[in-house]
Amino acid sequence: MTKRFEVVYRLTLSQGESAESKARGIALEQTAELPRELVPDDVMERMVGRVESVAPAGRDQHLACISYSVESIGSELTQCLNVLFGNISLKRGIRIVDIHWPHRLLEAFGGPGHGIAGVRRLTGIENRPLLASALKPMGLRPTQLARLCRDFVLGGLDIVKDDHGLADQASAPFEERVEYCQAAISAANREVDGQTLYFPNVTAAPWELAERAHHAQQAGCVGVLVNPWLTGLDAMRWIRDRFGLVIMAHPALTGAYLHPSHGIAAEVLLGDLFRIAGADAVIYPNAGGRFGFSRALCERINRHLRQPLGELAASFPTPGGGMSIDRAADWAKRYGPDTIFLIGGSLYGQSDLVTASRKLKQAIGG
Amino acid sequence: MTKRFEVVYRLTLSQGESAESKARGIALEQTAELPRELVPDDVMERMVGRVESVAPAGRDQHLACISYSVESIGSELTQCLNVLFGNISLKRGIRIVDIHWPHRLLEAFGGPGHGIAGVRRLTGIENRPLLASALKPMGLRPTQLARLCRDFVLGGLDIVKDDHGLADQASAPFEERVEYCQAAISAANREVDGQTLYFPNVTAAPWELAERAHHAQQAGCVGVLVNPWLTGLDAMRWIRDRFGLVIMAHPALTGAYLHPSHGIAAEVLLGDLFRIAGADAVIYPNAGGRFGFSRALCERINRHLRQPLGELAASFPTPGGGMSIDRAADWAKRYGPDTIFLIGGSLYGQSDLVTASRKLKQAIGG
Repeated sequence: MTKRFEVVYRLTLSQGESAESKARGIALEQTAELPRELVPDDVMERMVGRVESVAPAGRDQHLACISYSVESIGSELTQCLNVLFGNISLKRGIRIVDIHWPHRLLEAFGGPGHGIAGVRRLTGIENRPLLASALKPMGLRPTQLARLCRDFVLGGLDIVKDDHGLADQASAPFEERVEYCQAAISAANREVDGQTLYFPNVTAAPWELAERAHHAQQAGCVGVLVNPWLTGLDAMRWIRDRFGLVIMAHPALTGAYLHPSHGIAAEVLLGDLFRIAGADAVIYPNAGGRFGFSRALCERINRHLRQPLGELAASFPTPGGGMSIDRAADWAKRYGPDTIFLIGGSLYGQSDLVTASRKLKQAIGG
Repeated sequence: MTKRFEVVYRLTLSQGESAESKARGIALEQTAELPRELVPDDVMERMVGRVESVAPAGRDQHLACISYSVESIGSELTQCLNVLFGNISLKRGIRIVDIHWPHRLLEAFGGPGHGIAGVRRLTGIENRPLLASALKPMGLRPTQLARLCRDFVLGGLDIVKDDHGLADQASAPFEERVEYCQAAISAANREVDGQTLYFPNVTAAPWELAERAHHAQQAGCVGVLVNPWLTGLDAMRWIRDRFGLVIMAHPALTGAYLHPSHGIAAEVLLGDLFRIAGADAVIYPNAGGRFGFSRALCERINRHLRQPLGELAASFPTPGGGMSIDRAADWAKRYGPDTIFLIGGSLYGQSDLVTASRKLKQAIGG
């Protein structure tokens, strides 16, 4: 494992640019923010990124590996993101396609508090994919949402989460919603001897987020939903360390980084970054749905969430959408058991949620 | 002033897309997240976005105005961002080019705590642009940074800020750095009867951010630097409401949204969003520097930060870079007095920081 923070960039050159000078420019921009001649030699040595390699990779494109010292980051996730893509986000033709993480940063950030194994323990499901659905649409009252909760438990789903747009609207204020929904889940669990979990959306300003996580825990929830790009990525570690809750992360607002020639590859952003920051499960839009993720991309995200990464626990890939009951068995086979399938619209499209949920569960082998 | 949250999108159509259906898709995606036929009528009425207009705007492009009810947002900035661009960030060909803000949201978010007038009072400068510089590069020790502080005060700069990459590295840990730098600024201010302000970078995880803002205030700082896209946008309101500090906001990590066909126009993101969230001054890369912002774009950002917006105070545009001593007078004339010019490299390139700072100040009429 590397001792430095190594970032692999795919560079797309504009007219007149050379790959080597673009790479050297990135190494300076992300650290010293001064031209080379103004940087003292000891700062160059300790703090400025090093261009480790530059190689052609197709027309107008190059792969550059730049390594940064852990000292330039310290042990902070905010500064890690800043070194990764802070100022260069404002340039063009720079795409982060891979990161080699040094042990010290992985230790500092810590990753999932529960991981795949921990979430399995809480749901009592050992060998098959998990099934989740979302409470929607926004605008329903807490009693209506609670009825959906009951149906999903009777249908045998493993996790019910708030839609990520359920915040603190007047139609279903956070505290009231959580009480109604968790009570409905608990009652239905008793009725059918179930173990369905409810994850309310605690995304909010920092002062509210902590209160909502606390409230959710008091109401009996063992997990929550967070939109890390709305709260700041570090909000997840806060929830992990202060509350020990399971964290399911939603990709809202991250899509702008996924541009093919400038940004951060989805498997790095939703795979590596969400995982190191503490997400136990990471939602992404599945191939075949209304977003344009390819199956190959989804499989790369799955791999980044599950593959060995220092001592970090693995996170559950949570593909959302793009899945009908007919195709569920295929998806389960393709993505394997360590997957949470998040099904919304195709369940709501059925006249009877309970029956539709049961069929879906059968289809994936539950 | 509108009663609803009105967003103007520039749509770039892919083959087979129609502008009207793309606009209707956005209105549903950002609220109900279900197909039209599955949304109850009362939810359609209260919560789902309304397509107000769609008009052609050049080849393959259309302008669509979609309005959202305040009820779908509540009074939260996180949910406002989510409605604005959460899920559709993951699509393509959607660019937010303008927002018409309803009074209720402006009141809820509140904007700058000090604004241009308040920052002027703290610096004692009434009619000319302000001059700021950054402490850099990372890797310098607190004593070295303190020496730079002294030089900038003797040179007559109005604000000295941490470079946005100064976090909590071992070379200059946050608390030690702030003490050395604020002490150096205060001593030099006494020496020359100056009023230079020091803004340390408090960007960090939520639990650290509050401690750093507190520490900065205890050390005598009246303002801080924040990277809102690293901390979460709402961190600024936290600092404003809990500490009353002046907030200078840095655009790190926002550049991915500035893609011409998909994202958020810079004058909306750095203008409107940073301002409503509490930034008293907003840094952006000036035209002519090492980033590709055009002069016209910079002027649009300036306008969005300064123009009337409900009862909100105006924010100081803070163009950084692209400015030599020779051209300073031109820029000052072009951008007008309500501007903070942030000068880094072109000062550090001079052999004597004090003299260079003085010349620059003379050039802009100080």
